[in-house]
Amino acid sequence: MKKKVDTSKSVKVIPLGGLEQIGMNITAFECDDSIIVVDCGMSFPDDEMLGIDSVIPDVTYLKDNIDKVKGFIITHGHEDHIGGLPYILKDVNVPVYATKLTVAIIENKLKEHNLLKTTKRKVVKYGQSINLGCFRVEFIRTNHSIVDSAALAIFSPAGVIVHTGDFKVDFTPVFGDAIDLQRFGELGKKGVLATLCDSTNILRPGFTMSEKTVGATFDNIFAENVNHRIIVATFASNVDRVQQIINSAAKYGRKVIIEGRSMVNIVNIAHELGYINIPDNTLIDIEQINNYTDEQIVLCTTGSQGESMAALSRMAASTHRKVTIKPGDTVILSSTPIPGNEKAVSKVINELSMKGAKVIFQDTHVSGHACQEEVKLIYTLLQPKYSIPVHGEYRHLIKHAEIVESLGIDKDDIFILSSGDVLEMSYDEAKVVDRVPAQGIYVDGLGVGDVGNIVLRDRQLLSENGLLIVVVTLEKYSNQIVAGPDIVSRGFVYVRESENLMDEAREVVLDAIDKCLSHRVTDWGKIKTSIKDSLSDYVWKSTKRNPMILPIIMEV
Amino acid sequence: MKKKVDTSKSVKVIPLGGLEQIGMNITAFECDDSIIVVDCGMSFPDDEMLGIDSVIPDVTYLKDNIDKVKGFIITHGHEDHIGGLPYILKDVNVPVYATKLTVAIIENKLKEHNLLKTTKRKVVKYGQSINLGCFRVEFIRTNHSIVDSAALAIFSPAGVIVHTGDFKVDFTPVFGDAIDLQRFGELGKKGVLATLCDSTNILRPGFTMSEKTVGATFDNIFAENVNHRIIVATFASNVDRVQQIINSAAKYGRKVIIEGRSMVNIVNIAHELGYINIPDNTLIDIEQINNYTDEQIVLCTTGSQGESMAALSRMAASTHRKVTIKPGDTVILSSTPIPGNEKAVSKVINELSMKGAKVIFQDTHVSGHACQEEVKLIYTLLQPKYSIPVHGEYRHLIKHAEIVESLGIDKDDIFILSSGDVLEMSYDEAKVVDRVPAQGIYVDGLGVGDVGNIVLRDRQLLSENGLLIVVVTLEKYSNQIVAGPDIVSRGFVYVRESENLMDEAREVVLDAIDKCLSHRVTDWGKIKTSIKDSLSDYVWKSTKRNPMILPIIMEV
Repeated sequence: MKKKVDTSKSVKVIPLGGLEQIGMNITAFECDDSIIVVDCGMSFPDDEMLGIDSVIPDVTYLKDNIDKVKGFIITHGHEDHIGGLPYILKDVNVPVYATKLTVAIIENKLKEHNLLKTTKRKVVKYGQSINLGCFRVEFIRTNHSIVDSAALAIFSPAGVIVHTGDFKVDFTPVFGDAIDLQRFGELGKKGVLATLCDSTNILRPGFTMSEKTVGATFDNIFAENVNHRIIVATFASNVDRVQQIINSAAKYGRKVIIEGRSMVNIVNIAHELGYINIPDNTLIDIEQINNYTDEQIVLCTTGSQGESMAALSRMAASTHRKVTIKPGDTVILSSTPIPGNEKAVSKVINELSMKGAKVIFQDTHVSGHACQEEVKLIYTLLQPKYSIPVHGEYRHLIKHAEIVESLGIDKDDIFILSSGDVLEMSYDEAKVVDRVPAQGIYVDGLGVGDVGNIVLRDRQLLSENGLLIVVVTLEKYSNQIVAGPDIVSRGFVYVRESENLMDEAREVVLDAIDKCLSHRVTDWGKIKTSIKDSLSDYVWKSTKRNPMILPIIMEV
Repeated sequence: MKKKVDTSKSVKVIPLGGLEQIGMNITAFECDDSIIVVDCGMSFPDDEMLGIDSVIPDVTYLKDNIDKVKGFIITHGHEDHIGGLPYILKDVNVPVYATKLTVAIIENKLKEHNLLKTTKRKVVKYGQSINLGCFRVEFIRTNHSIVDSAALAIFSPAGVIVHTGDFKVDFTPVFGDAIDLQRFGELGKKGVLATLCDSTNILRPGFTMSEKTVGATFDNIFAENVNHRIIVATFASNVDRVQQIINSAAKYGRKVIIEGRSMVNIVNIAHELGYINIPDNTLIDIEQINNYTDEQIVLCTTGSQGESMAALSRMAASTHRKVTIKPGDTVILSSTPIPGNEKAVSKVINELSMKGAKVIFQDTHVSGHACQEEVKLIYTLLQPKYSIPVHGEYRHLIKHAEIVESLGIDKDDIFILSSGDVLEMSYDEAKVVDRVPAQGIYVDGLGVGDVGNIVLRDRQLLSENGLLIVVVTLEKYSNQIVAGPDIVSRGFVYVRESENLMDEAREVVLDAIDKCLSHRVTDWGKIKTSIKDSLSDYVWKSTKRNPMILPIIMEV
């Protein structure tokens, strides 16, 4: 950092999600009596979080300091940056600041949750600043796979912190201008205390290709498939991608149908606000599809990640209301599988192929995230004192650290933070001084936080082995068996195949109860344990399986 | 096909696994009174096959025609080609033919299942043929990620069928010679009726790199990490890879420890049979690890796919008996994630990194399967009349078909077969004439085939929503409630958080029973349905969840 600031002042950086909950991007910045929060994402459940719909941030720290909290500043409109808002705003009702498209996407979400009236929103333009307590936050233009993305320059009494948000460097973007590298340079010249920078693509050498290169690929594919219906699946929020599909369609005289609720929503918003340019008479409604021949249309749809309920999967499975894949269709998957979705994407490609479609899934996508050289460029412009790699798994963050170190930043000035770490930074020193709650909170149906590890462990056990329920009715005082034991199984084995097993199991349970009674054991807890242990032994020996065993005793 | 054969004769090709069960490679060939079976694999369960250990082939067709079945011919020793044998040999006890290492690996497996005494095995050399009824089968040298792999030339009265097995073309293999391309050429010159060819890598253009290139990479990594302990994880059965680790270790004066049961087994077998060359005093036992410094050893281990029970994962989780990852360790993942394992591999990389290890996972592996140009080479040498793409998902098989068509094979002479299809081929004609049973059979613990779709559906439901059990004891004849209703939940919500819910649920159940009784409904089935419906409604309305509801009525 070239220029001195008030070195007696410090600022705190507190990630409330992130490393331990990839996708749950939310970071608090605190200085004196002010807290601002950058982004408010949610993450999708891991494989072991059975039955969980989503995971949202724990904002106990914000609630405990609610008087300090000045607002949410949102970098862009992706779920992993805005998805937590509808849940969190109920407890932390502060204004939301973002660029125009981002605000519109958030408003759409708030409407669904009936939160529009109670939530203050403010549109901020690139280059514009907002004052929030002792902070001033400036929005800086970046490029990303959704338009209107911003980096943030956070001016604090202790110095300037630059948060890149999700970004890439696109010298030839489809909409608007290239990332404002000049401003990054200017900020760097004046002195930057710390940078929080995107690590998503940090394992990849080189430079991410321009979004515009995909348009050229589309043109080629359209040229080679003039006699076929063309279906392009991509991310619902990638407005620039949709723009390029529309461009190719217009060039080759095709009508465009947008299909899939989330994509229709975002394209409508983007169109209203002028972020997408649709020539007259290009867009048609899906209801009009039968008025055109196959060669005259392009379907632009959701489902590029193999999501089973998305439009493309329904078309492939012939459960879509209007469109069924047929021989001769050309389907372009304009995306890369997000880690974990590889098998689902393969499945949808196989299904489309079996229906006779030609599926094109190679070289039809570019990433929205910076590769190594772009990250180096940003650091070279900003030259911050401290580096805080963000947005990635641990392996990404340490690669980021390695690269930053190679640029001359001191190893001790690079901080890989866990969710909940409180990093206190001044010009002289930076260190983790505290920890705040930052475990993800599970959302299951209407329940927020009512499913925890015990419930998940039970679901895991049930999913692998099923269960055996043993019900027996005992007579009060005498503890004689008056009904049962009955054994009911679910998810264990075919009952018909296991009649012997069930008969013998019943004997095992009877024995266990008899033994308890003959030893004058009357405590139900002990009787249940005895049933459980002996039945569990028996079942393991005969089947090498471990179903959950649930003894229930009733009394009459 | 250049040369005429007996065109009145036909031969049948019957895949009993494959397309619908990737990995379960098993194909029957039938002619007159003879059936031979190539490979006998098993597949691993899909995500939705909850609790299933493995899936093995349905060999009803072989059992029904047991008098015809002459033997299993195994192309190589990978699980997806031999894993089904211990199960299937119990019902179809015919001799097993394979190359020396493959037989040894199979014997190791048979020993574990107590089948060694009852199973006939015969070692076949490259170039050698065996006569099996009206078939003659010649073993042809290929290259693959396990040594001693073979392609098969199956001579039948109707013509020669060449099955490539899993293969690549490696001009500079680590052990033994390059694939016997001359023999492929010779066979092609004489005339080949059909080719079954590996499609695993068919989406990749170009040529797969030689296994030897990995050795050069190892040398570089060893040179750059002389002061660190080196741990290399790879596939247990990739003997050539282990050889190259040993080579680099010897060059840099390190001792080698092989760790992980399956790798120890295979390396022992390979060493005994002379497939791996270990310089004296290079291999040490893991018990001796503390006699050496970090710079003096290399650990060669299993777990490169992130398998949670494998040695590498246990080292990363500090649950390994002897080795714990520590700062300064260099860990090489010499593998690529198999589709579906991406997240598990990322997880282990993150864990290793968090322990302070440097993890190298890029450019440290080459595939064992042929890319597009290698497949073209094989077809150009064989020039078969019919092409039957095998080993791959549907999207691979159709890409294979497209490539084969580009080589001049008639579209109608290319057959993408489903599991169970019976393809009858003569020189004049080939078509699918029948279907035989070929669904995979689920293995769960000791149970083979006793878990089916109903059980799996229950496990799915239980895993996502848990269950509510309602138990009530009724008095005989009067049907008055004498105990309960009690409601027990598992995997649903924290009980403490849901006391109100449970109290109200009890009321709902009481109401339902009362209503039944006041309407003189005494049929237990109907009472149960009524309990289930009303409780399900209530729970959905209050929680938007759908637990399994299990009413149990007892009678005293």
